[in-house]
Amino acid sequence: MHEIVRSSPSRFSLLMGADRGSGTQSVPQTDPLPSWNNSPAKQAIIQFVQTTTTQGNPKFVPEADRIATFDQDGTLWVSHPIYTQVVYALDRVPVVVKARPELANVEPFKTVLSGNLEVIAQLSNDDLFKILDATLTDMSVDEFKAEVTRWLLHARDPRWKRPYTELTYLPMIELLKYLRANGYKTYIVTGGGQDFVRVYAQEVYGIPPEQVVGTVTGISYSYHKNGRPFLTRDPKLLLNDNNAGKPEGIHVMIGRRPYAAFGNSTGDRQMLEYTKAGDGERLAMLVLHDDAKREYAYGPALGLPDTKVGTFTQALYDEAMKQGWIIIRMKNDWKRIFAFEK
Amino acid sequence: MHEIVRSSPSRFSLLMGADRGSGTQSVPQTDPLPSWNNSPAKQAIIQFVQTTTTQGNPKFVPEADRIATFDQDGTLWVSHPIYTQVVYALDRVPVVVKARPELANVEPFKTVLSGNLEVIAQLSNDDLFKILDATLTDMSVDEFKAEVTRWLLHARDPRWKRPYTELTYLPMIELLKYLRANGYKTYIVTGGGQDFVRVYAQEVYGIPPEQVVGTVTGISYSYHKNGRPFLTRDPKLLLNDNNAGKPEGIHVMIGRRPYAAFGNSTGDRQMLEYTKAGDGERLAMLVLHDDAKREYAYGPALGLPDTKVGTFTQALYDEAMKQGWIIIRMKNDWKRIFAFEK
Repeated sequence: MHEIVRSSPSRFSLLMGADRGSGTQSVPQTDPLPSWNNSPAKQAIIQFVQTTTTQGNPKFVPEADRIATFDQDGTLWVSHPIYTQVVYALDRVPVVVKARPELANVEPFKTVLSGNLEVIAQLSNDDLFKILDATLTDMSVDEFKAEVTRWLLHARDPRWKRPYTELTYLPMIELLKYLRANGYKTYIVTGGGQDFVRVYAQEVYGIPPEQVVGTVTGISYSYHKNGRPFLTRDPKLLLNDNNAGKPEGIHVMIGRRPYAAFGNSTGDRQMLEYTKAGDGERLAMLVLHDDAKREYAYGPALGLPDTKVGTFTQALYDEAMKQGWIIIRMKNDWKRIFAFEK
Repeated sequence: MHEIVRSSPSRFSLLMGADRGSGTQSVPQTDPLPSWNNSPAKQAIIQFVQTTTTQGNPKFVPEADRIATFDQDGTLWVSHPIYTQVVYALDRVPVVVKARPELANVEPFKTVLSGNLEVIAQLSNDDLFKILDATLTDMSVDEFKAEVTRWLLHARDPRWKRPYTELTYLPMIELLKYLRANGYKTYIVTGGGQDFVRVYAQEVYGIPPEQVVGTVTGISYSYHKNGRPFLTRDPKLLLNDNNAGKPEGIHVMIGRRPYAAFGNSTGDRQMLEYTKAGDGERLAMLVLHDDAKREYAYGPALGLPDTKVGTFTQALYDEAMKQGWIIIRMKNDWKRIFAFEK
């Protein structure tokens, strides 16, 4: 299925091309980050890249060691008010209930089938895990990929009426490309499902499947009746790529410490901490969602109510200040947020 | 520690250079595989590469999808009569017993301390796992790397009196380079410890840590008293990268099916099967150790006694014949086995 997504002239491709030549008149063509205002955040990125890639600089990093890790939800694309993968799982509930009718009268499936969004929004994390297990596992990895691919082509975000894959942040796509152009290997390190993100990561972020580190379910190898082998996604958690699970997953999947790490919530704290604990020049940045008009404003660090997902707490803000992590303020640091903006 | 290994003009570097210009007079300079005799095995490799990398060929594979996976023990380096990692673990027993004297009178440590090699060779797999757990876990990933690095510099194989890292097969090193020169991303997929192999994979095979898939212990993130974070290797099996664990590990770590896979024992069967089950041109090869003079000859497929490690059974041989997997016969297919050979 991956090949199908890639070979078609999809919306994805349009998105990937859209960040070229998007700068305003005042920005020189050579600016690698045209959607960023010329603020301290942008300057910190450029200084980091120049320091670590200039031969002779005492903090020069050999190209083979240049690793940069990015959280996805809330860092590379919109995650508010609900993770896209959860939307997908909720959308799949009717399909699953059709195959397993006994679930129709069992919670939390009953609530999801009611369509009452206010009640659905109140589901506990335990309930969400039940839904994720029931909708995203016990199927072959090929079926899973085919289903996600199909859904992404048709599903639309209710606010922007666009495919979810267009809700990526243009400044971050520019940042990914800028780092890669300077020899950095870019990784996604997401609390979301590794296989889910892999379906579109190449097309949307230019990141191949092997550079997506995420939450991993058990995988088991077995055979069809005709003897052909296949892999199944088991309802079993193998790696929970959140909080301390991020540096742990980075070690298992990458085997070395990043030089730069980007996040937006408490789930990214340990990844940034681990990154900054390395020798030499290291960059740690957090996206703050403070733009209610162009995107969203949420989180206790802004004095706004806590949210279920992607929480930017006051403690995280204080930690960032103490540790020298740099805050990316969407409102002031980003000239343009989405590629589809005029 | 990785940087230390890499920046010193070590034996490793000598080895990496040694396969250049090593062909005999009869082999043209352009031959990418000068240590291979011009046998069907070599022809199959060259035909596979030409087929999958020639634009316009119906079986052309885009560069982004070119993945090749290699077992390590017995496929890339000597594993007979005992895995190098097990030698390392046995060597560490006295160190561990010094720190934990209560183990001195407990089996299997008592047997290992006796130094009686014949009895040690008879230890059960359960006993070996106990030794691996006690010697290779409950330490930080940085300590582990430092210890392995130190050991590799000083340990010598008893037969060749050389560092273990020189016991790699020159024809396979040439094959790795030939595949990479043709756009293939080369991975090690080993039943051995992922962190163990990562210590020397870049230097010895030109394979970076993130392209080593192996057996994985639990990793946990915690803090020193000074607040500095570190990662610990836990005595807990996370991924057992043998048999069905190989395609499972490939999915978790790489996320796509290889086009070529290389092994030498029953532990590689599922990896080869999974590889060949893909569409288009796929290559599966097995190294047969049939050269008692230059290396070793062992395994039931040769009518020789079974061995504890790296078993090439009759059933594996029959499966290879049935499935079109190609046997690499060391004795006839390899002109030269080691870089240090005259």
